[in-house]
Parts: sequence; C-alpha cells; structure tokens
Amino acid sequence: MQDHIYKVVEIVGSSQTSIEDAIQQAVTRASKTLDNLRWFQVVETRGHIQDGKVHHYQVTLKIGFRLEDAARD
Amino acid sequence: MQDHIYKVVEIVGSSQTSIEDAIQQAVTRASKTLDNLRWFQVVETRGHIQDGKVHHYQVTLKIGFRLEDAARD
Amino acid sequence: MQDHIYKVVEIVGSSQTSIEDAIQQAVTRASKTLDNLRWFQVVETRGHIQDGKVHHYQVTLKIGFRLEDAARD
Amino acid sequence: MQDHIYKVVEIVGSSQTSIEDAIQQAVTRASKTLDNLRWFQVVETRGHIQDGKVHHYQVTLKIGFRLEDAARD
Amino acid sequence: MQDHIYKVVEIVGSSQTSIEDAIQQAVTRASKTLDNLRWFQVVETRGHIQDGKVHHYQVTLKIGFRLEDAARD
Amino acid sequence: MQDHIYKVVEIVGSSQTSIEDAIQQAVTRASKTLDNLRWFQVVETRGHIQDGKVHHYQVTLKIGFRLEDAARD
Amino acid sequence: MQDHIYKVVEIVGSSQTSIEDAIQQAVTRASKTLDNLRWFQVVETRGHIQDGKVHHYQVTLKIGFRLEDAARD
Amino acid sequence: MQDHIYKVVEIVGSSQTSIEDAIQQAVTRASKTLDNLRWFQVVETRGHIQDGKVHHYQVTLKIGFRLEDAARD
Amino acid sequence: MQDHIYKVVEIVGSSQTSIEDAIQQAVTRASKTLDNLRWFQVVETRGHIQDGKVHHYQVTLKIGFRLEDAARD
Amino acid sequence: MQDHIYKVVEIVGSSQTSIEDAIQQAVTRASKTLDNLRWFQVVETRGHIQDGKVHHYQVTLKIGFRLEDAARD
Amino acid sequence: MQDHIYKVVEIVGSSQTSIEDAIQQAVTRASKTLDNLRWFQVVETRGHIQDGKVHHYQVTLKIGFRLEDAARD
Amino acid sequence: MQDHIYKVVEIVGSSQTSIEDAIQQAVTRASKTLDNLRWFQVVETRGHIQDGKVHHYQVTLKIGFRLEDAARD
Repeated sequence: MQDHIYKVVEIVGSSQTSIEDAIQQAVTRASKTLDNLRWFQVVETRGHIQDGKVHHYQVTLKIGFRLEDAARD
Repeated sequence: MQDHIYKVVEIVGSSQTSIEDAIQQAVTRASKTLDNLRWFQVVETRGHIQDGKVHHYQVTLKIGFRLEDAARD
Repeated sequence: MQDHIYKVVEIVGSSQTSIEDAIQQAVTRASKTLDNLRWFQVVETRGHIQDGKVHHYQVTLKIGFRLEDAARD
Repeated sequence: MQDHIYKVVEIVGSSQTSIEDAIQQAVTRASKTLDNLRWFQVVETRGHIQDGKVHHYQVTLKIGFRLEDAARD
Repeated sequence: MQDHIYKVVEIVGSSQTSIEDAIQQAVTRASKTLDNLRWFQVVETRGHIQDGKVHHYQVTLKIGFRLEDAARD
Repeated sequence: MQDHIYKVVEIVGSSQTSIEDAIQQAVTRASKTLDNLRWFQVVETRGHIQDGKVHHYQVTLKIGFRLEDAARD
Repeated sequence: MQDHIYKVVEIVGSSQTSIEDAIQQAVTRASKTLDNLRWFQVVETRGHIQDGKVHHYQVTLKIGFRLEDAARD
Repeated sequence: MQDHIYKVVEIVGSSQTSIEDAIQQAVTRASKTLDNLRWFQVVETRGHIQDGKVHHYQVTLKIGFRLEDAARD
Repeated sequence: MQDHIYKVVEIVGSSQTSIEDAIQQAVTRASKTLDNLRWFQVVETRGHIQDGKVHHYQVTLKIGFRLEDAARD
Repeated sequence: MQDHIYKVVEIVGSSQTSIEDAIQQAVTRASKTLDNLRWFQVVETRGHIQDGKVHHYQVTLKIGFRLEDAARD
Repeated sequence: MQDHIYKVVEIVGSSQTSIEDAIQQAVTRASKTLDNLRWFQVVETRGHIQDGKVHHYQVTLKIGFRLEDAARD
Repeated sequence: MQDHIYKVVEIVGSSQTSIEDAIQQAVTRASKTLDNLRWFQVVETRGHIQDGKVHHYQVTLKIGFRLEDAARD
C-alpha cells in the first residue's frame, strides 16, 4: 500500500455453509471482473431463515483494489 | 435472495415533489444501465432551500443488484 | 410522558404507496395487540425494486408504549 | 457554496400530514428569523401515536445558512 | 417480503464451537416460540475467555419474523 | 453467561430523582413479568424540563434475560 | 408536543458533585435566555481528573425548546 | 474548563487552500459575534470539485464557547 | 492541554452505589499505575441485575493522561 | 445540484506529503475515467508508518458525480 | 464480574483459516503477557486478498482483563 | 500484514502548525517506547482556540504495531 490509488466496491456474498465461505464467494466473483484486489472489510453479516434453520449467510463486504493508471474503473 | 452475489452502488436521486419521487428517480436512472436491481436502502435525506422553501429533495440510496456470472459490473 | 415505564418494540411496516403509509401499517398492526402506543422512531427506510420501479417501501420503526402496572408485555 | 461561511442550526418541524410537510414547516419557521437558508439534512424522523394512528410526524433537521460578514447569528 | 408486517426481536446465542453455531443456537431457540422467522442480522460478536482460550462465543442477533394478522406478538 | 440463550428487550424507565433511580424503575418493572434478568445497558439518557428545571429523567435500557428451554418469551 | 416547531441547542454543563447536577446546571443556564424549554438528551459525559480524582463532570446536552411564532431564536 | 457552562455551535468554514485554513476561516467568523471561544471539533470534511481538481474544502466544526452569566446566546 | 502528547486507555469501573462511584473507582485504580491523568469520557454504561435489582453498575471510560518525554507507557 | 442524478464512488488516495495532496490524488485519478465530478467527502484518514515516521497518508473519499442521461456508469 | 476493575486493550489477530482462528490467535498472544483475561468483543473483521482469494483474515478485538490491586498495567 | 498479531494504542498528538504535524508528533512519541509501528488511523480532530484563532490542533490516533513473540506490550 504505497503511493497507489484504490477503489472500493461493495459486494454481498452468500453461502449455505459459513461466513467465511460467503466472504470467499464475494471475493471470487469480484476477481472475475476486477484486477488487483487487495483487501476486504466486513460491513454487515445477515442471513435468511427457513424452517427454523439458517438457510444461508449474506455478508456485505467492502473490497479494495488498486487502480491502474489509465484503466476504466 | 438465495445463493447469489450482489453488488451495491450509491446513487443520489432528487425531486421537487417528494422523498418517494427522489427515490424513484434514482432507481429509474440506475435501471437504465444496471440489470437485476433488487433492493434499496435510504442512506441520507437532504435538500436545498430557496426563498424559504424546500426547492428539491436529495435522497442518497444504496441500491443492490444481482451480478450475472460473467458480466462486467 | 411522566413517571411511567415504557417498552419499545421494533416493527417493520411495508407499503406500495409511500413511506408514511408503511409507517401507518406498522402502527396499525402493533395497535392490534399492544395498548397505550405513544411514539415511533424511524430506524431504517428500505424497499424492494421490481422491473426498475420501487415495488414497495419497508420502514423499520421503534414503537414505544406505556406498560400497565401488572400487564404481561 | 463557494468561499462562504455557514452556520447550521437544528430545528424540529411537525405535521399531521406527511414527512415532507413537517420538513417544510421547519424550513418556513427558520426562514422567518434567519436569512440565506441554503440546505437541510434530516437527522431523525419520529412521531406521536394516538388511538392506534400516527397523530403527527416530527422531523429533526439540520439547516444551513450563509453568514453575512458582520451579522449577529 | 411483500406487503407483510414483521417484528424484530433481539436474541443472544452462544456456542463453544463457532460463530455460526452460536447464530444457529439463537435461531433454533427463537423458532420454538415464534413462527415465520425470516431473516437475522448480526448486531454484536463477543465471547468469554478462560485460561487464555476462547471458552464460548456470544452472538447478538436481530431476528425478523412475519406477524400473522391477529396473533399476539 | 455460559451456553445459554438470552433475549434482549428495550425498556424506558423514568424518575424525578436520578438516572440510577430511573434505571432501577425500569429493572423493577421488567422483573415483574420476566424471569432471569441478567444485565442492562444504557442506550439513551433523556429528560423533560419544566419551569427551567429537570422534571424527570428518562433512561432507555436494553435488558437481557436468560430464556428457559420451552418458555414463551 | 403537538403541531409546534422546536429548536435544539447544544449546551455543556459541569459540576463537581454529580452527572445530574451538571445536567441541571446546563438547563438552569439555558432557561435564563431561552423560553419554553421542553426536553434534553445527553450527548456526551466527560470529566476532568485532578490528583487521581474526578474533579468535575462535563455533560453535553441537546436541549429542545418550542419556538414562538415570530420570536428571534 | 472548570465549573463553567458552554454552548456549542456548528459552523462550516471553507477555503481553497487547505483544511487548516477552512478551520481557521470558521473560527475567525465565529469570533466576530461570539466571545470566549474555547475549542473546536471537526465534524465533517467535504469539498467541491471543478475541472477535476479540488476547488475548495468545506469543514464543519462544532465550536464551544463559555457562556457569560446573563448574556443572550 | 497545550503542546503535549497524551495516551488514552480504556478502563471499566464498577460500583454497587452509583454511576459516579463506578467512574471514581476506575479513575482511582488508573491513578495507581499511571501519572498525569487529565480527563475521562464515558464510553458505555452497563450493569448486572440480581433478584430484580441493579446489583452493580459497570462504566467503561476512556482515560487520557499526559506522556512524559521518555517514560515507558 | 438541481434535479440531477448523481453516483457516488469510494476512492482511496495516498500521498507522502499531506492529507490535502492525498485527496487531490484521488480526485485526479477519478477524473481520468469519470466526468462531471462535483463533490467529495472524507470517510477515513489513515496512514502507514516507517521507522517511526509517517510514510504516507491514505485518505478514503466518497466522490459524487452527475450521471448523464444514458451513459454507462 | 463483581466489584472489580477491568482494563480493555485492542488486539488484531490474523489467520489463514477462519475468523474464529484469528480471534483465538489474538487471545493466545494477549494471554502471554496479560493475566485474568475475561472477555472479548469483535470490533472489525477485515482481510487481505491474493490472486482472487482470501489470503488471511484480520480480526480486531477489544479484550478485557481484570486488574490486580497494585499491578502495573 | 501477514500472520502477525498487532496491538492498537490510542495517542493524542498536538501541534500549533497543522494536522499533519500533530499526527507526526503522536507517531514520534509512540516510536520512542514502542517498536514495529505499522499504521495509524485518525479517530478525532479537535483543537483549542485563543483570541479568536486556532491555538493548536489535537489529533487522536489509533496506532497499530506488531507484537514480538514474547515481548511485554
């Protein structure tokens, strides 16, 4: 994290397994269209309930990535 | 809201009529370039005053939309 | 608001019409099972989007009501 | 909003009709004694309940106005 | 989440195993006495320490459930 | 605070004497209808003014209590 | 708290005795120059330490008062 | 900061040069009509952009000043 | 509070008597091992309940003290 | 700021010189790929330390820009 | 948690495995130099990304421990 | 920032010159007694006023440093 410029986007990942998996799902999806992903921060952890059980977790992340000099963000 | 991934963008709508109209203006504009809009959350409600009257409302929204598998976001 | 004791519950009302109507829906429903409702406070204003339009508003309220001396709350 | 100095005051408007009307009531009242009102920001939306209905809305605003060079604020 | 009314309650679940298990414990317990549970939101994640180790996690949730038309909440 | 499940309710106590007394009033009232009260947290301290004097304090508390295994909450 | 307009000011009271006394000091001072004081809300509780003891409390209040129709605020 | 009473006002200063200059502009303006200014706290730092450059900074301050015994505030 | 450097530590004091006493307990304890204590700020006010009564208050403070030039903090 | 729609993006600028320069770096980079930049708001000010000195500042900004009627955002 | 005094420190733990492991790493490290650790609270959950995958989690905790009567903290 | 453990302390730096200088003063002082300082985050920016001018800035920082394996923190 030197003299670079970063952009931060907000992504919601979900998973039926765990909070960590929901985070990884969001990061994986973001990495398909964005380069140079560097860090994330958990903004909110929610989930849906079905028949008295956690059906899936939804984790909202801020994800930061380094901007190339002239790339369209 | 099942096992999908969502992106959240921040849009400011404005209207001379009402808060609801400012929200709708922001949603309408977002829907022109983004598909699969699902929900919004009001982040801030402001407005401008002219001659002692509310001239227009400005409502900042977070808007969530589902990401397609390979779409550029 | 003299020397009374109040309880505060959190209710989410929704409406396809307006934020005010969503608030009134929540208050109306709460008044069916709770007596002595006194005030509300808007905690969050959200909504769902369908086909690029606001489909309905969802307003989360804190609603305060006075507790009777021996009533089950 | 150029090189000016602004003061921000906090006003609570109320209305039996709508949130927008409560905002306008606050702005109207502020404009009677303050010049150069420029913007407002909603800080809190509350209200009172009577007989299971919203009796009136109370909206707390921050209102910003430009300070004249030597005017008493 | 259509035109329904929801109530939100705050429950603290605990577990010696994981944060996810503490969430599930809270949801399971809530489902014993409340119907139509729909979603949860993590409000706080804490825990107790014994002999230099995490003894158990305590996760505070907001849990939302749909209100039936005339049910006592 | 071992492997138990807790529920948290929000109560507003008031007193003409002190903040501590307003807290105690809220706890006393809650203990009439709820068992196993364990802790409280002050959420807000307000009050009403009459003739230039504090007429009474109003303290909003979160109060946590342990849920029995099958009790209606 | 009917259809009135209120203004909210921020006052810091201090006392060597108690938090309640610091609140009362702020209210007393405000009542000297402002009419129709109605409520207060504690924003912050601080204090100064001297020789390992609390020397005085400083409590920051928001104080609300009803605006007369044409009064300079 | 002994047993005195303070009032806190909110002022927005602006400057094309720096954040510190915007703070000083607000303090200078406040000192023209208010005596006994003691401290400030930065509430928000914003600014306007023109032609891809920061045109001016806008810094919102809380400014505290000691109230004289009988002075109009 | 001139050109000095301060360190801020977080201490939780408790008391069966009052909030003020819990604050003083924390300050007294901090003063045993830290010099030059200058101010405190209340971060949180909680407490434990036993048999339907407040058993003791727990007040979390930030306490600021001036650092000597070369002292180990 | 009339009846327009704005989008808000989050950018982190960095600089070894000053907070203002880090802000300008972020604005300059954003202006390369986004038109009609209008305002910024500082969200967070951080920095990295090397050999006991501030090595560079990192300032996170929200930057608002007006959306053209049909432009891809 | 009776009439004791506690100190709260802020520790950042990290782990390539899970959030729970990052918490345990922080607690383990703190227990090496601090006695009587009692509870923790998660303040922030972040992480670093490498090659489109979560490389490690970083969890910031507040950790509370009971102060002995005369111990240096 | 790999698999290390960090501690975070809160330091208030002050300067008559600028916000950046106040930050540097805090970092310099912290580096005298703490090794491996890595980052800071601005928590609050305040200042004192004298004769209608900013006399000095006071900037509260969180400063993070890497913990050695067995070092006393």
